[in-house]
Amino acid sequence: MATNSDSLDHLRRRIAEFAAEREWNQFHNPKNLAMAVTVEAGELLEHFQWLTFEQAESLPRAARDEVALECADVLLYLLRLCDRLDLDLGAAAERKLALNAEKYPVEKSRGRSTKYDKL
Amino acid sequence: MATNSDSLDHLRRRIAEFAAEREWNQFHNPKNLAMAVTVEAGELLEHFQWLTFEQAESLPRAARDEVALECADVLLYLLRLCDRLDLDLGAAAERKLALNAEKYPVEKSRGRSTKYDKL
Amino acid sequence: MATNSDSLDHLRRRIAEFAAEREWNQFHNPKNLAMAVTVEAGELLEHFQWLTFEQAESLPRAARDEVALECADVLLYLLRLCDRLDLDLGAAAERKLALNAEKYPVEKSRGRSTKYDKL
Amino acid sequence: MATNSDSLDHLRRRIAEFAAEREWNQFHNPKNLAMAVTVEAGELLEHFQWLTFEQAESLPRAARDEVALECADVLLYLLRLCDRLDLDLGAAAERKLALNAEKYPVEKSRGRSTKYDKL
Repeated sequence: MATNSDSLDHLRRRIAEFAAEREWNQFHNPKNLAMAVTVEAGELLEHFQWLTFEQAESLPRAARDEVALECADVLLYLLRLCDRLDLDLGAAAERKLALNAEKYPVEKSRGRSTKYDKL
Repeated sequence: MATNSDSLDHLRRRIAEFAAEREWNQFHNPKNLAMAVTVEAGELLEHFQWLTFEQAESLPRAARDEVALECADVLLYLLRLCDRLDLDLGAAAERKLALNAEKYPVEKSRGRSTKYDKL
Repeated sequence: MATNSDSLDHLRRRIAEFAAEREWNQFHNPKNLAMAVTVEAGELLEHFQWLTFEQAESLPRAARDEVALECADVLLYLLRLCDRLDLDLGAAAERKLALNAEKYPVEKSRGRSTKYDKL
Repeated sequence: MATNSDSLDHLRRRIAEFAAEREWNQFHNPKNLAMAVTVEAGELLEHFQWLTFEQAESLPRAARDEVALECADVLLYLLRLCDRLDLDLGAAAERKLALNAEKYPVEKSRGRSTKYDKL
C-alpha cells in the first residue's frame, strides 16, 4: 500500500486544494502550467550546468536538498497540468513505458543511447 | 490504497528495471537526467506554444493523448533522476507544499500571481 | 554599417574575452553551454508564465528591462556555444531562414500556425 | 563592417518580413515567442543530453549542422521577441556584459564557476 506522499492522486488533490484556497485557478490554464513545468525544469537544470559527472553524482547535502525541492516543483506543476486537462499521469506513465518497450527492444538498444528512429 | 500506476515508488522501480535491462545506467548520470527532464518539458511546451488559452483548455483528442505522453516522459525522467540521487520525490513534494504554504499565506496571495518575494 | 553592438562577431569576441580573463573556458564545454542557453531561456520564460497576452504586450518598464537582460543572457551563451563549436551563428540563421521559406510556402502557411509536417 | 548575416538588425528585419508575409504576427505575441525560444533551446539541448564532454566537443559533421540550425532557431525567435517588445538585443548584450563585469570581478571569479551571490 502506498503511503500518502507516494500516491500521485493524493498529491494531485493536495496541490489542487492549495491552488483553490488561493483562488489561483484563474492563472492555472494548461498553457501557463506547461510554461511553469518548463520554468521549474530550467531551475533544476541550473544546479547541474557547470558540474562534472562526478560532482553531479555526489552533491553536497545543501545542494541535494535544493535539487529535491526543484524536482518537487516540476512534479507539482505537472500534476496541476494533468488535473486541469483531466489526464491520469500515472496511467500515462505506464502507457509510455509500454510504448518505449516496443520502440527500444532490449536486443537492439542494449548499451546504446541512440534514439529509436536511428536504431 | 493506491493502484500500481498511482504509486511513485512503483513507477520508479518500473523505469529503473527498464533502464537496467538496456544497460542504460551508464548514461543515466544525474547531470544527463536533469537535461532529459528539461528536454521533455520543452517537448510538452511545444504543444501549447501557439495556442490561445481557450484552445489550450479544449485540446483535440489526439493532441491530448500526445500531451499525456509528454507529461509521462517528464515524470519518468524525474523519477530516474531522484532514484540516482536517492531522493524521495513524493516526500519532497509534501515538503515543498508545506514550504509554499508559509511563503504564500492565503490572505496575502489570494487571487494574485505575485511571486512570494514581492508579496 | 553595423554598430559594434549590432555585430554578432563583435559580441562573440567580447564574451570570449570575458570568459578567457576569468579562466572559464574549462567550464565552457559545448554540453554545459547548451545547458546554460536553456537555463537562461527558462528564466526568460518565467517573466511571462502567468501573464495574459495583453500583459505580455505591455510590460511595465522594470519588467521590460529585466526581460531585455534575460534575452541578452540567452544570446551571450548562444554565442559562446557557437564559438566553442566553431559555428557561424549569423550564417546559420540565414541558412535556416532559407530552409523555412521552403518548408513554409506563403500560400500554404498564410495565417496558420500549423507545423510544416502537417501543412 | 559587418556582413549582412553578422548584423542583428539585418536578421531582425529578415525574420520580421518572413512572419509578415505569412500573416504570423497574430501568433507572435511576446508570451508565445518566449515559449518558442525555450522550445528551441530544448531541441538544442537534446543533441547533447547523452554525450560525454569529449563527444560534445567533437560532434560528427551531420550533428554539427543540426546543432547550428537549432542555434539559429533560438536566435531567430529571440530576435522576433525583442522586435515585438521594441528591445535592442545587441545593446542589451553589451549592458549585460558590463553588469557581469561588476558581478564577477576577475580576481574573485578566476577559475571558479560559483554564482555571483555566493562569491
